[in-house]
Amino acid sequence: MLQQLNKEVLLKRREALEQVIKRRFIYQPAFSLYGGVAGLYDYGPVGCAIKTNIEQYWREHFIIEEDLFEIAATILTPEPVLKASGHVDRFTDLLVCDSKTGTGYRADKIVTETLENRIAKEGDKLAADVKARYLAVIKDVDTFKEDKMKEVIAELQIKALETGNDLTDPTPFNLMLPTIVGPSTKLPAFLRPETAQGMFLNFARLLEQNGGRVPFGAAQIGLGFRNEIAPRGGLLRCREFQMAEIEYFVDPTEKSTFKKFNKYINLEIPLLSRQLQAEAKQHQPFKMGDAVKEGIINNETLAYFICRTYLYLVEIGINPVNIRFRQHQADEMAHYSSDCWDAEIEMSSGWVECVGLADRSAYDLNAHSTATGYKLQAARKFKVPQPRQVLQVILDKQKIGKELKKDGMALIKYVEALPDDEKQELSEYYQTHEDKVFNIDGKDLTLNRELVKFEQKTMNVMEEKFIPHVIEPAFGIGRILQAIIEHSFNQRDDPQKTFFKFSPRVAPVKCSILSVVQSEEFDVVIQELTSSLKKLGISCKTDNAGVALGKKYARTDEIGIPFAITVDKETLTTQSVTLREIETTKQVRVPSVEVPRLILELSAGLILWTDVLAKYPVFAAKEEDA
Amino acid sequence: MLQQLNKEVLLKRREALEQVIKRRFIYQPAFSLYGGVAGLYDYGPVGCAIKTNIEQYWREHFIIEEDLFEIAATILTPEPVLKASGHVDRFTDLLVCDSKTGTGYRADKIVTETLENRIAKEGDKLAADVKARYLAVIKDVDTFKEDKMKEVIAELQIKALETGNDLTDPTPFNLMLPTIVGPSTKLPAFLRPETAQGMFLNFARLLEQNGGRVPFGAAQIGLGFRNEIAPRGGLLRCREFQMAEIEYFVDPTEKSTFKKFNKYINLEIPLLSRQLQAEAKQHQPFKMGDAVKEGIINNETLAYFICRTYLYLVEIGINPVNIRFRQHQADEMAHYSSDCWDAEIEMSSGWVECVGLADRSAYDLNAHSTATGYKLQAARKFKVPQPRQVLQVILDKQKIGKELKKDGMALIKYVEALPDDEKQELSEYYQTHEDKVFNIDGKDLTLNRELVKFEQKTMNVMEEKFIPHVIEPAFGIGRILQAIIEHSFNQRDDPQKTFFKFSPRVAPVKCSILSVVQSEEFDVVIQELTSSLKKLGISCKTDNAGVALGKKYARTDEIGIPFAITVDKETLTTQSVTLREIETTKQVRVPSVEVPRLILELSAGLILWTDVLAKYPVFAAKEEDA
Repeated sequence: MLQQLNKEVLLKRREALEQVIKRRFIYQPAFSLYGGVAGLYDYGPVGCAIKTNIEQYWREHFIIEEDLFEIAATILTPEPVLKASGHVDRFTDLLVCDSKTGTGYRADKIVTETLENRIAKEGDKLAADVKARYLAVIKDVDTFKEDKMKEVIAELQIKALETGNDLTDPTPFNLMLPTIVGPSTKLPAFLRPETAQGMFLNFARLLEQNGGRVPFGAAQIGLGFRNEIAPRGGLLRCREFQMAEIEYFVDPTEKSTFKKFNKYINLEIPLLSRQLQAEAKQHQPFKMGDAVKEGIINNETLAYFICRTYLYLVEIGINPVNIRFRQHQADEMAHYSSDCWDAEIEMSSGWVECVGLADRSAYDLNAHSTATGYKLQAARKFKVPQPRQVLQVILDKQKIGKELKKDGMALIKYVEALPDDEKQELSEYYQTHEDKVFNIDGKDLTLNRELVKFEQKTMNVMEEKFIPHVIEPAFGIGRILQAIIEHSFNQRDDPQKTFFKFSPRVAPVKCSILSVVQSEEFDVVIQELTSSLKKLGISCKTDNAGVALGKKYARTDEIGIPFAITVDKETLTTQSVTLREIETTKQVRVPSVEVPRLILELSAGLILWTDVLAKYPVFAAKEEDA
Repeated sequence: MLQQLNKEVLLKRREALEQVIKRRFIYQPAFSLYGGVAGLYDYGPVGCAIKTNIEQYWREHFIIEEDLFEIAATILTPEPVLKASGHVDRFTDLLVCDSKTGTGYRADKIVTETLENRIAKEGDKLAADVKARYLAVIKDVDTFKEDKMKEVIAELQIKALETGNDLTDPTPFNLMLPTIVGPSTKLPAFLRPETAQGMFLNFARLLEQNGGRVPFGAAQIGLGFRNEIAPRGGLLRCREFQMAEIEYFVDPTEKSTFKKFNKYINLEIPLLSRQLQAEAKQHQPFKMGDAVKEGIINNETLAYFICRTYLYLVEIGINPVNIRFRQHQADEMAHYSSDCWDAEIEMSSGWVECVGLADRSAYDLNAHSTATGYKLQAARKFKVPQPRQVLQVILDKQKIGKELKKDGMALIKYVEALPDDEKQELSEYYQTHEDKVFNIDGKDLTLNRELVKFEQKTMNVMEEKFIPHVIEPAFGIGRILQAIIEHSFNQRDDPQKTFFKFSPRVAPVKCSILSVVQSEEFDVVIQELTSSLKKLGISCKTDNAGVALGKKYARTDEIGIPFAITVDKETLTTQSVTLREIETTKQVRVPSVEVPRLILELSAGLILWTDVLAKYPVFAAKEEDA
């Protein structure tokens, strides 16, 4: 558990872990042969298998459990879509460059790093008020706009890190990677910065698949891209990163209650609420039912997904004591958002945001409706008629008929049939305009405002249209993977003997099949076992090399294979093998034919190692020290 | 089976299928709200789930079975990588534009379409020699280079399709999508056109994971991008498409024998060999052992992957009679390739290449070695020493010592320790140069050719270096998905009643849970069943609406849910439900507690529907016609 280790032990541990990550190619910088590109990483076999497994379990835990609609939309996204969503104008970081070399820095990062260096270097020599000023800037610098940033850089004499040269003025740098689609149309496009837009754009199709009813959720697992100014921190800040996102569409009048939340009202989760942050306090556990009742979390739907996220993280092997949910400050959230929480995981580099859970209200559906004219709405159906204020259009039919003759009838029919929201728009239009031109059947027909009146009237209606709100849990798969690797990493008494205690469903390979010594007789058994495991779709790694069994265990431990099957002399007479668990290194003796099923059920979380220990005779091993 | 249907039936069927694809959002054009972008498609819930399932089974069938190393490399790829691989210079199609409007066409496509139109329109009025000329051009047009294409366009008076305007001269258009990474470095990069390069670049890391031994294979499932000039044909030609590729690295002296191939020597697979094509014959079944023995397929390793590919396609639901493997013509292959086969699947649009299997020799590893200076090699280890011609460097140590003093010793040590290939390079260098400067420990030391002699000598060696060859099976997931959907589509006696006969492991949702009538008692049972299915990670769809059971079946049939569990009155007294299979619509009565396990095993292919029929009493249904 990270909390219980001091800084020095943590760093040593991190160093040992880095070596394993490199030696066993869990992940590594991409394009090393060509000098590398910052912020791009390749996952090797171990990292890739873990990634696949946590994605697959995400499908089970979220998509299957909540009956979400999983889709796969494209990465290539035309510019107008991202203009409407706000990304073209606002998806930026402030960039400053070395005025002589041109090297780029993220403004907030270079300010923070410079001031932290000064504090560390000057120590007690630093005047108290200067230090206080530095700390205040560090705390807020990521919220500074261009002007404020420029002021602070001048005031605190921030210079380029490597050269000490002056910095250019801060300018917003758009973080989307641009491309051009097609040879003749030359359509400007971007690589999507998040998977969310694909789900908003398919809202109407998915609503139809759900029989027109909300709530329902869309989900997507896929890549996002950000042209980070100066990426650092391994998998924590990449230019290309795997995400898993949910857009859960709800009726805003219903989001405060979520039936399935009932089973979690007594679940305790560490929250760092807005208030606790204001009081400079630590996170503390809350019963989730209370957190909603006391207004700490805005609504049950959001709280339900916080619970599900917490349970997911714990299930895939994140240490529960290193998880907290931090609420966004009011000025940290987008203006349309009513509440926002980050699942933060404590790693060697501190608390890292790994999942964002935001109530985005109707912002996105509204934005695309406005941009395209398609109404992204749902209908609220009533069991009994409900009285509603309805705007009625009263037309002077006589005058219209006189003026427009036959066309007048078409115009009347058209205007009276307008949906409620367009009647509303029309009434607003006439407040500032004299005439409105309607194009009906290819003819332009003008309607003067003298001929139209609007009247609010109470009517009984059976349904009304609304724009759903959306609750968005967004998972950063790379960050979560990094956390799992850190939290699972262990060293035995001999610190050279490292192992990962992965949850079996997350483990990259489910079992190894080893022989105590090299022998053709054993090879036959190993082959039979391998083939029955593969038939069940279970990944396994055989090792029949002529080295000591202890060394074979060390190799499989190093990449976190949770179970080791060993073939020994007794196997040939009793058709049984030993089965060893990685953390305890305890072994049991199991009939060979029962092993594949056992591994399958252990890997799927259907049974636990303690169940195996209870059922089969313990085998006292000597080979461990070999 | 497509073969047995005539064209008209096929087209009607295709039309009905298109309607289902749209109505049930299996996949649809992306960005429709914004007018759409050609060649970009979004997968809806049904399409996305099938995609996930065929990828997951690809992992079992290839990665687990062959112990391949799966990796996840990046899509963003710096330009020098794709320069080395040949894509920057040669990954092009010939583009012609409407000289007035600028609309772009793929030259081969516009020529083909124009000539086909003329043949269809003119019919018998077309002179025989003109028609023969048209057909000859159509056959070869995709191999024409710029000059030849220009000639043909002039000769046959090919004009822009919509306007009849003149066309611009054909120019190569690079099909890679460009981008720029980073704010200050501004690194030119492309979106990868295939996943292969990521595996070549990680060759050395993977070789190390395999203990330095070949053969071994790398695998990758991920997106590729091609900026198609004028994409058409739905999922068959997209600008963004999912691929699954294997790079199987072998010792070139060993690729002709592949131990596991033995079990497939009697497997019959339809081949359309180079010779059959030359004779204008149809494909015909070959025993795979014979195909290798007779030299039709170049080597056992390639043949083995053809067998595995065939078995994979059949297992996921492609009709075996609509599969053939077509060999590339000698002029169709890259010069370095020794053999190349495409798995083609017959669909409503004809035979479509869905998997390419190529022997790429040492081309790619060589290309990146040359570009970067890193030697991407493996070592062949001998059990007994082998005589080999070795180039020896004989240095005039006395003179060197005299000239360079202490540095001379360092120089001698350095040159003598050079690897064999660098000694070879050195000997070639001195054939045209007088002096060579070595930088040793930061010092530039010059060695004149008078002081060096080279001598070929036979020596016994224990190992030698070589560049592995690579066999590359590359799967187009979207095309395979399209084929599965076409081959699985069926209509009952009432052609409005459509269903998909998906293989259970591919089916998007594994079962539906229905009630004969709406009732709260039934809802409780449905909820219990749903929750035990979800616990096993099985996707299911409940439908307790107040509509006739026949209608509910029709809804689940339409998206190809293979099994339907129905809760009826008897369920409440005997704790049993009925289980219905989609194709036969036969039903059995099964104890409720046994159902989840049964669905799990049916979905994993561990048992078949016939096993279920044999074990449980048949239930005579009346509801089907309701």
